[in-house]
Amino acid sequence: MSQLNNVLKSIDDGLPTALERLFDLLRIESISTDPAYKENCADAADWLSKELNEIGFQSRICKTTGHPMVLAHYHGVKDAPHVLFYGHYDVQPVDPPELWDRSPFDPKIIEREDGTSEIYGRGSGDDKGQLMTFVEACRAWISETGSQPCNVTIMFEGEEESGSPSLLPFLNEFKDELKADFALVCDTSMWDRETPAIATALRGNMGEEITIEAASRDLHSGYYGSAAANPIHILSKILADIRDENGRIVLDGFYDDVPEIPDDVLAQWGELGFSEEKFLGDVGLSVPAGEKGRSVMEQTWTRPTAEVNGIWGGYTGEGFKTVIPSQAHAKISFRLVGQQNPDKIRKTFRAFVEARLPKDCSVTFKSHGGSPAVHLDYNMPELQKAAKALTEEWSRETALIAMGGSIPVVGDFKRELGMDSLLIGFGLADDRIHSPNEKYELTSFHKGSRSWARILLALSS
Amino acid sequence: MSQLNNVLKSIDDGLPTALERLFDLLRIESISTDPAYKENCADAADWLSKELNEIGFQSRICKTTGHPMVLAHYHGVKDAPHVLFYGHYDVQPVDPPELWDRSPFDPKIIEREDGTSEIYGRGSGDDKGQLMTFVEACRAWISETGSQPCNVTIMFEGEEESGSPSLLPFLNEFKDELKADFALVCDTSMWDRETPAIATALRGNMGEEITIEAASRDLHSGYYGSAAANPIHILSKILADIRDENGRIVLDGFYDDVPEIPDDVLAQWGELGFSEEKFLGDVGLSVPAGEKGRSVMEQTWTRPTAEVNGIWGGYTGEGFKTVIPSQAHAKISFRLVGQQNPDKIRKTFRAFVEARLPKDCSVTFKSHGGSPAVHLDYNMPELQKAAKALTEEWSRETALIAMGGSIPVVGDFKRELGMDSLLIGFGLADDRIHSPNEKYELTSFHKGSRSWARILLALSS
Repeated sequence: MSQLNNVLKSIDDGLPTALERLFDLLRIESISTDPAYKENCADAADWLSKELNEIGFQSRICKTTGHPMVLAHYHGVKDAPHVLFYGHYDVQPVDPPELWDRSPFDPKIIEREDGTSEIYGRGSGDDKGQLMTFVEACRAWISETGSQPCNVTIMFEGEEESGSPSLLPFLNEFKDELKADFALVCDTSMWDRETPAIATALRGNMGEEITIEAASRDLHSGYYGSAAANPIHILSKILADIRDENGRIVLDGFYDDVPEIPDDVLAQWGELGFSEEKFLGDVGLSVPAGEKGRSVMEQTWTRPTAEVNGIWGGYTGEGFKTVIPSQAHAKISFRLVGQQNPDKIRKTFRAFVEARLPKDCSVTFKSHGGSPAVHLDYNMPELQKAAKALTEEWSRETALIAMGGSIPVVGDFKRELGMDSLLIGFGLADDRIHSPNEKYELTSFHKGSRSWARILLALSS
Repeated sequence: MSQLNNVLKSIDDGLPTALERLFDLLRIESISTDPAYKENCADAADWLSKELNEIGFQSRICKTTGHPMVLAHYHGVKDAPHVLFYGHYDVQPVDPPELWDRSPFDPKIIEREDGTSEIYGRGSGDDKGQLMTFVEACRAWISETGSQPCNVTIMFEGEEESGSPSLLPFLNEFKDELKADFALVCDTSMWDRETPAIATALRGNMGEEITIEAASRDLHSGYYGSAAANPIHILSKILADIRDENGRIVLDGFYDDVPEIPDDVLAQWGELGFSEEKFLGDVGLSVPAGEKGRSVMEQTWTRPTAEVNGIWGGYTGEGFKTVIPSQAHAKISFRLVGQQNPDKIRKTFRAFVEARLPKDCSVTFKSHGGSPAVHLDYNMPELQKAAKALTEEWSRETALIAMGGSIPVVGDFKRELGMDSLLIGFGLADDRIHSPNEKYELTSFHKGSRSWARILLALSS
């Protein structure tokens, strides 16, 4: 225990310099989905690889057809398990930039009146702040003890926010080098500000972009209004038709592979004291918008959904333009659960759209990737060990939860490398990830690093 | 007749220099709806006023709270009628700029293989090319004869493409100075390439911009997907609900003030030989999209409609972002006929939207102006005289037609100044006004100028 105490004290004492390192990383504008930021993504990968080499890992950059991977090893620990840690260094776009109170890539510590502090900036919560908790735990172990409790491989991806096109080829090419006893993934949240959590289920997803094309050119709505097909009308109707009046998605067979959650699991979740009023109220809402007859917890954790994430067409500038545009566009994502198959859902969705087109209009589809849902085994010994270590750090029982988001890599680790993953993260629901004013709690960063230090030791026993 | 022949010859001989003048005007980027082009609009007004003074008019700029008016007089012709000519020097935005084959504000003559030519550039067809046909006719009369057949007041507006907010105040302030026997408006089309036309009915319009607001900030669709209201879904549903399955608009009482067109008028239109296949086929379409049971001619001339002219919300950049936006927006315009009242329709539309909002969402409306439909008297003597003059120039019977577009000033002239208007223009359906690659036929410009020279003489008899 005294060795662990030294490591924890080293994390406490080193917090200011750890924050400086994190800020260096946060300043890099590594927006993976926008080709304009390609160099920045490469810079973030370089920064991380250099950092890991300095700590004592053997790290290198692995090129892909998209953004590079960082692959690092710290081996040679006898009679110890081997873990693969995963995080991603890419971040979401900052749109709409005018809604940020401060510059997204100039990170700051903001102290609140209640004495708590947040780390402000794009990527602080998703995922740079999170992945650095693990890096700082490794640094502390090595600097204090000259070694680590486990053999560790680290893999940092740069395409998590843009569909991970290079992930599967990479897992296949480096299969032998990546294989470990199990994976640790730090891209999830705590149950609440005081309660640590391990996520045991994640929704999958499937992204599509559709472009409806009507006339061969933009038209004047005075000349052609009502006679000429308006692609915005067609698109609106299609999007409106996706749900019935009970909020259920009407795609053929959509719910075929959606399981009902066992009563005992629902009962355990019931004990977490989730408040629908607070969850929605925190973002200014009060009416659950999903399937009727399902709780908000079900709507966000265990039920599939379809969300339009973007729509555009026609004149969107100042003033008015009486145009019937030739095209209208939407980006749509489906969250999947149970055994729902992304490819099958994509096919069904495309047929649904095509069936609703007038015969003189056309549609083009663009896939933005997909991955099935993930479910972990509650009885994994590693899960129990990690839960105990988290409880020791936070002095609260660790919650075993489901999450509405998607972390495709977890399914890929299972299918490609045969590895289970422990999903442990220190985000909070109000971190505004993917939104303007993203933040990460200073406590999450500090106690998150301490948590990993404890977990690495716990897993080695 | 020899005087007219001299004037027509002067127009023929002066065509190259007339085109140079038109090009000077087309180069001015007078986009009225976008505040960034305020100076350009003022430049266009200055250019026109200077031009009119050089011809022999007494012209000046009249400031408004928006873009300036040009007001010019050529009086003192004894025993002759007094006409007020109206045109507008402002143009539509060029969005989307990438769809233009050439620079929108660098006008060019493009010769086609069949020997015809087009004048390419934003504003060439709407309305700079058109208004300059009248100016060139005046120039030719004055330079050849030292006078004109009529007393002429000219008024050029700079806000026609942005809802004409200053028009009514201007008409009121300059009521006495603007009053004439009747008005001439050059902002409409020919029936086809060979057949001149006078428009006797125009649809009115009413523009609205709506913003649906749901959550207080953008949300991650993984965390909140399906539980949190998505404003794009709400907007899509509202837009889809505006029409029933027969293409009829379901707003309460929407068709109350919509007259049926008399059989004899429909019969006259039937003789024009309108081809639905060609009209739609020219823009790559084949299925009439409006009310079932109505011909395309009715759909575009005599039936009211609603068109979504723009929609936007969420992430619209490259790649994908799994966001549930806090807001979604649309610009919607209604084309009105008969006695439909824009204010009443606006009120009904707003109630329709509000009735479809979940109680935790809100909507804000922005008016983009409105005007009722216009119907002219077929038996006006001036209409018959102008029709005869047009027939003489084009060697084809002049078509008396309705038009789907809106020219609000015509109603305002009637209501505010008690004047009827003759709507004579030389545009063609394929001029791509309001679209990329706008053009005006060289023939329209040349024979349009000759037409006005004839009409000015005909009206004086």
